[in-house]
Amino acid sequence: MKVGPFHKRHPPVGARPGTLVIEPGAQATDISVMDYTTEAVAEHEHVPAAELRRSTRAEATTWIDVRGLANEETLRAIAEQLKIHPLALEDMVNAPQRPKSELYDEHQLVILRMAMMSDGALQLEQVGFLIGKDYVATIQERDGDVFDPVRQRIRQGRGPIRSAGAAYLAYSLMDTVIDEYYPVLEKIGEELAELEDEVVERASRGTLRRIYDAKRRLLLMRRAVWPHRDVINALVRDESPFVDATTRLYLRDTYDHAVQLLDVLESYRETAAGLLDVYLSSQSNRTNEVMRTLTVTASIFIPLTFIAGVYGMNFDAMPELHSRIGYPIVLGIMLVTGFGLLWRFKRLGWIGKQDDREDGAE
Amino acid sequence: MKVGPFHKRHPPVGARPGTLVIEPGAQATDISVMDYTTEAVAEHEHVPAAELRRSTRAEATTWIDVRGLANEETLRAIAEQLKIHPLALEDMVNAPQRPKSELYDEHQLVILRMAMMSDGALQLEQVGFLIGKDYVATIQERDGDVFDPVRQRIRQGRGPIRSAGAAYLAYSLMDTVIDEYYPVLEKIGEELAELEDEVVERASRGTLRRIYDAKRRLLLMRRAVWPHRDVINALVRDESPFVDATTRLYLRDTYDHAVQLLDVLESYRETAAGLLDVYLSSQSNRTNEVMRTLTVTASIFIPLTFIAGVYGMNFDAMPELHSRIGYPIVLGIMLVTGFGLLWRFKRLGWIGKQDDREDGAE
Amino acid sequence: MKVGPFHKRHPPVGARPGTLVIEPGAQATDISVMDYTTEAVAEHEHVPAAELRRSTRAEATTWIDVRGLANEETLRAIAEQLKIHPLALEDMVNAPQRPKSELYDEHQLVILRMAMMSDGALQLEQVGFLIGKDYVATIQERDGDVFDPVRQRIRQGRGPIRSAGAAYLAYSLMDTVIDEYYPVLEKIGEELAELEDEVVERASRGTLRRIYDAKRRLLLMRRAVWPHRDVINALVRDESPFVDATTRLYLRDTYDHAVQLLDVLESYRETAAGLLDVYLSSQSNRTNEVMRTLTVTASIFIPLTFIAGVYGMNFDAMPELHSRIGYPIVLGIMLVTGFGLLWRFKRLGWIGKQDDREDGAE
Amino acid sequence: MKVGPFHKRHPPVGARPGTLVIEPGAQATDISVMDYTTEAVAEHEHVPAAELRRSTRAEATTWIDVRGLANEETLRAIAEQLKIHPLALEDMVNAPQRPKSELYDEHQLVILRMAMMSDGALQLEQVGFLIGKDYVATIQERDGDVFDPVRQRIRQGRGPIRSAGAAYLAYSLMDTVIDEYYPVLEKIGEELAELEDEVVERASRGTLRRIYDAKRRLLLMRRAVWPHRDVINALVRDESPFVDATTRLYLRDTYDHAVQLLDVLESYRETAAGLLDVYLSSQSNRTNEVMRTLTVTASIFIPLTFIAGVYGMNFDAMPELHSRIGYPIVLGIMLVTGFGLLWRFKRLGWIGKQDDREDGAE
Amino acid sequence: MKVGPFHKRHPPVGARPGTLVIEPGAQATDISVMDYTTEAVAEHEHVPAAELRRSTRAEATTWIDVRGLANEETLRAIAEQLKIHPLALEDMVNAPQRPKSELYDEHQLVILRMAMMSDGALQLEQVGFLIGKDYVATIQERDGDVFDPVRQRIRQGRGPIRSAGAAYLAYSLMDTVIDEYYPVLEKIGEELAELEDEVVERASRGTLRRIYDAKRRLLLMRRAVWPHRDVINALVRDESPFVDATTRLYLRDTYDHAVQLLDVLESYRETAAGLLDVYLSSQSNRTNEVMRTLTVTASIFIPLTFIAGVYGMNFDAMPELHSRIGYPIVLGIMLVTGFGLLWRFKRLGWIGKQDDREDGAE
Repeated sequence: MKVGPFHKRHPPVGARPGTLVIEPGAQATDISVMDYTTEAVAEHEHVPAAELRRSTRAEATTWIDVRGLANEETLRAIAEQLKIHPLALEDMVNAPQRPKSELYDEHQLVILRMAMMSDGALQLEQVGFLIGKDYVATIQERDGDVFDPVRQRIRQGRGPIRSAGAAYLAYSLMDTVIDEYYPVLEKIGEELAELEDEVVERASRGTLRRIYDAKRRLLLMRRAVWPHRDVINALVRDESPFVDATTRLYLRDTYDHAVQLLDVLESYRETAAGLLDVYLSSQSNRTNEVMRTLTVTASIFIPLTFIAGVYGMNFDAMPELHSRIGYPIVLGIMLVTGFGLLWRFKRLGWIGKQDDREDGAE
Repeated sequence: MKVGPFHKRHPPVGARPGTLVIEPGAQATDISVMDYTTEAVAEHEHVPAAELRRSTRAEATTWIDVRGLANEETLRAIAEQLKIHPLALEDMVNAPQRPKSELYDEHQLVILRMAMMSDGALQLEQVGFLIGKDYVATIQERDGDVFDPVRQRIRQGRGPIRSAGAAYLAYSLMDTVIDEYYPVLEKIGEELAELEDEVVERASRGTLRRIYDAKRRLLLMRRAVWPHRDVINALVRDESPFVDATTRLYLRDTYDHAVQLLDVLESYRETAAGLLDVYLSSQSNRTNEVMRTLTVTASIFIPLTFIAGVYGMNFDAMPELHSRIGYPIVLGIMLVTGFGLLWRFKRLGWIGKQDDREDGAE
Repeated sequence: MKVGPFHKRHPPVGARPGTLVIEPGAQATDISVMDYTTEAVAEHEHVPAAELRRSTRAEATTWIDVRGLANEETLRAIAEQLKIHPLALEDMVNAPQRPKSELYDEHQLVILRMAMMSDGALQLEQVGFLIGKDYVATIQERDGDVFDPVRQRIRQGRGPIRSAGAAYLAYSLMDTVIDEYYPVLEKIGEELAELEDEVVERASRGTLRRIYDAKRRLLLMRRAVWPHRDVINALVRDESPFVDATTRLYLRDTYDHAVQLLDVLESYRETAAGLLDVYLSSQSNRTNEVMRTLTVTASIFIPLTFIAGVYGMNFDAMPELHSRIGYPIVLGIMLVTGFGLLWRFKRLGWIGKQDDREDGAE
Repeated sequence: MKVGPFHKRHPPVGARPGTLVIEPGAQATDISVMDYTTEAVAEHEHVPAAELRRSTRAEATTWIDVRGLANEETLRAIAEQLKIHPLALEDMVNAPQRPKSELYDEHQLVILRMAMMSDGALQLEQVGFLIGKDYVATIQERDGDVFDPVRQRIRQGRGPIRSAGAAYLAYSLMDTVIDEYYPVLEKIGEELAELEDEVVERASRGTLRRIYDAKRRLLLMRRAVWPHRDVINALVRDESPFVDATTRLYLRDTYDHAVQLLDVLESYRETAAGLLDVYLSSQSNRTNEVMRTLTVTASIFIPLTFIAGVYGMNFDAMPELHSRIGYPIVLGIMLVTGFGLLWRFKRLGWIGKQDDREDGAE
Repeated sequence: MKVGPFHKRHPPVGARPGTLVIEPGAQATDISVMDYTTEAVAEHEHVPAAELRRSTRAEATTWIDVRGLANEETLRAIAEQLKIHPLALEDMVNAPQRPKSELYDEHQLVILRMAMMSDGALQLEQVGFLIGKDYVATIQERDGDVFDPVRQRIRQGRGPIRSAGAAYLAYSLMDTVIDEYYPVLEKIGEELAELEDEVVERASRGTLRRIYDAKRRLLLMRRAVWPHRDVINALVRDESPFVDATTRLYLRDTYDHAVQLLDVLESYRETAAGLLDVYLSSQSNRTNEVMRTLTVTASIFIPLTFIAGVYGMNFDAMPELHSRIGYPIVLGIMLVTGFGLLWRFKRLGWIGKQDDREDGAE
């Protein structure tokens, strides 16, 4: 139940703009290049930063995929090759940034947050996109991403991807990032459904914790998805010179997906809030049940004990004590009193079928 | 009390845009065509996709009604005939989409969610509309819709429907979809009224569940109706070449209905929230009642039992025990104490007419 | 405590636009016409629909007042005479509509909701206004309205009303509708003030119901008043050809009133929410008081009873029992214990002046 | 704890626009005039309405200060002299209006609400401003205002006030009205601070009332301050012919003050809401404490009493009773049981240093 | 738990605009000047106000750093030298103002709030910036600021700071102020994480206080950060003549940081609200636990005591008493009853492993 310390790798306060913060455990920087024309695809692994542009043929679209943020020099070399503005480089390296879209002279910078379920745990990782005239560069924190289907589509040349240029490639990648949230939300939806069962059938204090955790995860998701909507919308609306009209049409679709994700998130959040209400009410119900048990037992036996106490007194002159039928009569009074009270509590619904009455309809 | 898993049929993440997702249990695709001029109406059932346009006469308005999403080939053939953009087709087939309105070169795409009460259960189904120059195509998930009154109006030629063109036909269909929410809301309103009675008169734990369910249903409805408002507003405001000025006037009316539905939904939501408050308060009231019973019983009999206990002690030298009037005096003290406490609790309103006092005004 | 079923008289879903819904118990349609110039006023009762315009003199301003929605033919005849668009007629007849303002070729349509206190009960009724070049038509559901002062002003010729034209007449009527909410709000304010006293001094379960009812009434009022603000604002801002600049100045004043009503409503809503908090807290306070009584009684007498129980045991060898001073000593111990506990509870504030302490400041 | 009936002096519904409502207890209308040039200041008391403009010299700036709203004729005479539109007059006389700014041909109308602490009680009074070419007229409900420092500045000729014209005078007066809220807020802030102490240290039911009152007062303040912000902003933004550019610069400063006041009000409101949470939680804590006392006492002595009860039974054959060591053994068992339970409850933290544990950190 | 009195040093109400409020304990005013070209840096301490501009060389950028607000004359002398408008001076001296940005003829005024952690306590201090053509003036309340890294960068000539002009210097300083909030938020995040542990594991009444304090601190932070966003945005958007396009690019980055800080603050606020829910629920859980203990003990022993009471009665004719096996049988019944009830309560989960059951999953 950690709040999660504040994660942003921010440079020392007052540092020169463009200062990069390299985390101790960061992964070594590695570059893959994929460049393709309608006819052919060439893939290069471990490309040195200095040869980035040299590996590209004319008329081809190039996807430069950088993974790992450990080597400041390599990153700066890449920036020099691609003419990345120091602020843009800082934004891509000092993760997590708020997702955003910014226009520079040489390219459009887009920063998204990629969600993945790995081993049942939700992982968020930042991806930076640079959309240039004939290339797209992506900068990721770690190996492992959601882009394999796009790589396949490029290799197999299915659809218009091989001929549609850099903006379409960027769209394909960003669309993949957004769509990857669908299965993540599905997972969260299933957990909420399980929580609902738990709240109704076997609520425990751990339930509260799980509701609380679910609310926090939804909060985190919303913080990631909300700016995505704005980023994609900006790409659709603004007349970026790096995004052509056709691709804009496709991005409109991606925008719809982002909005739909937000819709679902909002209804999940309301669901979680509702679960909390139900939980708190069931707690109060349990207290009520405990109270009822005590009240019934005590209210029946305390008066009876009093009667017994009266005839346990040692006064010399208590004529009832010496009567033959004193004892049976007192026993009878006790029985009548006891069952009378029992009947009354039953009629009030405090005993017997109380559980049925309360839960019967469920 | 399921959250309902996340329903959207989304294509595999990273798939080519325009990929269709055909659900296992989807209904076989079937096409009906109705084309009419001021003079005549022709209806064709089971029209093959390839003959879609051939069945149409000049100067006629055509309504192409596609039901069932099982046959990808048929759907793609329809798309080819009507020049549907792959993204538009994807939106219409991979339901549920967020309701939306988008302009393409050949037609205006509108996606709405249709609500129907069938056998007392609320059913939501997506309907896609393509509004062309001289035709309207609707794509539905299943047989069964709310359009029969419109079909009747076309057959009988009542009102301007036979002469007013494709946009007016689209308006009539969309208006029907929106208006169908009225009886659905009426039903929900009745349920809320019943819940109100239940909360006041016979609240049980099942009540909480029903309040919670009502809140969720209202949430679901709002998620459907809210974007409808925007969609219809966009059709009224934007200068779509497929919607003429007269029809726009009619759509303004439909827009008002959508807004009114939202108003009602909002007040229902506040009503449901109020019910929850009343329920929680009545729970707390019940606990209070139980406590009062216990307190009255115990506070009267515990002191009396103590007195009895004193005279049940076995000391040799307890002069009271040997007095003639010891026993009656002690009994008298007990009676006075008991009734004194009883009177006090009555004055505090903890016994007797407590129920009247609490519920009398209702 | 009914939610109030969903009231709108909507036509059968899918019906032709312009379909009128005549309610069984609707009042028979009756038309009064008042037309006046600076010099003279003429009033006509029970005017036949066909002679509507004939009764009007040149240069006069005419107020056509239609009451009762039972006769569809009459209503349609009126519509024909005044060239009312079918959608406008539908909006005026199928009440309640959301208050709105719409411009048609022949006139400006305005729909407001009129509030009246009749016999202490709040009544809401729809009024439709058609503002033409030289006439105003009002369509009401029932006899009985708030317009009598305006009728008087016309008859007596006070102020500019006789010379200022149709728009000014419409303003006078609409202003009256809006201002009638002031006494209604005053009434609600008084009820809230009474509720406040009740919550503090004699809260019962009926109180909760009354708070809940007050909240619902405020919700209902807000749903009526909120769109009024927009309607009047639209008339002030938009350049309707039927509203001249001078009248617009007056409408600005009406707009201010609508905004002020909303302000008051909002603060009433917050007041009602605050009352709920106070009520719930006072409930919890009462439980606390009950608990304290139980705790004090039980905590004092249960230990004493135990002591008595010890000396009620029948062991042969209990030397205390045979001591002369055994009984007085035990009684003394009981007294000391009892008063000691009493003193402790008093110091904790659980008995005695507890009420003063809790309520003293009130 | 009154809600405060709805105060607005509104004319009878349907009355002619411009109708003035004179309250029974209103103060007699009195006019002071102050007119000044850079060289000299002239002050006139009890100026007759008819001589309003005559008392003014050429090239001078005139401040006409009207106090008291009892004499309708005088007010109408003033209106005639200053060419006040009937609606403007109505707004200034029928207080309280929502603060607003409206442009008329002859002057700018501004209505503000003036807050004063008088004898520890918050007083709100409406002030209307008319800003003309060379005069400012203020209309107040009562004698007594916050303008004395401005009067001093005019008399002493400090700063630019004597030469800067009517708009600057109006700014000075309005700025004073806004700034007077600072000490009022300071007072409320101190009360909140006291309430905080009270909630933590000596919460009683009266505390709830005081929290509730504080919330209502903040609500009232917000209703007054919020429209001020809009009014001042409108004066800064709109190009009123009666407000010159230099004065607009000063008004920008006043606007900042209004925004800052709102900021403080919002944080006070959140503070008050937080106090309510703390209060409710402390109530629940007190119940818990009471319960613990009961539970500890009862759980220790009820079992012991049972043991005593067993050996108080009168069976002939109870060998323990005749044993020499029966009594001491049973007493021993009682002691061990009692202290065992005591130790257990201590370990659970239910007795002993409970208060320290709960409150220690405070 | 003080609300913090309302801090703003506002001049006496009605005072002339531009009046400065010098606080009794204010620090003596001291001026440092740093002016630099690409080649050289000159630093001057304790510069007299009159020589402010004389110390500046041509073509240099000058940073005038004023600390301490005690000497009104010095401050007015500075204002005269730099041609500061009286309102601008008032804003900079009468702290705290709401952060804002205003354009004057001679310079751009920017007011920010600087946050520092000093000795674990959060300190907020106002900084005013005047951005002129070739100088930046900063006015701080006290010695001690967050600008040392910028001073170092100027001295060492790292990055473009020495050549990029006054606007870039201002950006560097403002960026430092904004970025200093990161470590402050980190600190608060850590405290929240600790609070989470405390709420779950060892909640006490002090916990509530700490949650409440955390909420207030977050509220305070938001009040500071929120307007920063608007201020920086205004600098980026508006075409201030004192901020060049390049610097605007850098400010866009600062804007992103401000937005991100707000994001984090919002999620912290929701976290704190969630903690409150968990705390309140755990309180209610503890009450439940106490109740259960009481109920189990009382419900078992009260009936048993009753049985013992019956056989402690002194009737002459109670045949059971004289039976040999009467005593063992009654003891047996007691054992069976007791263990039966025990077993029932165990099955209900009210005793034994209750803690495990409740907390096991955590």
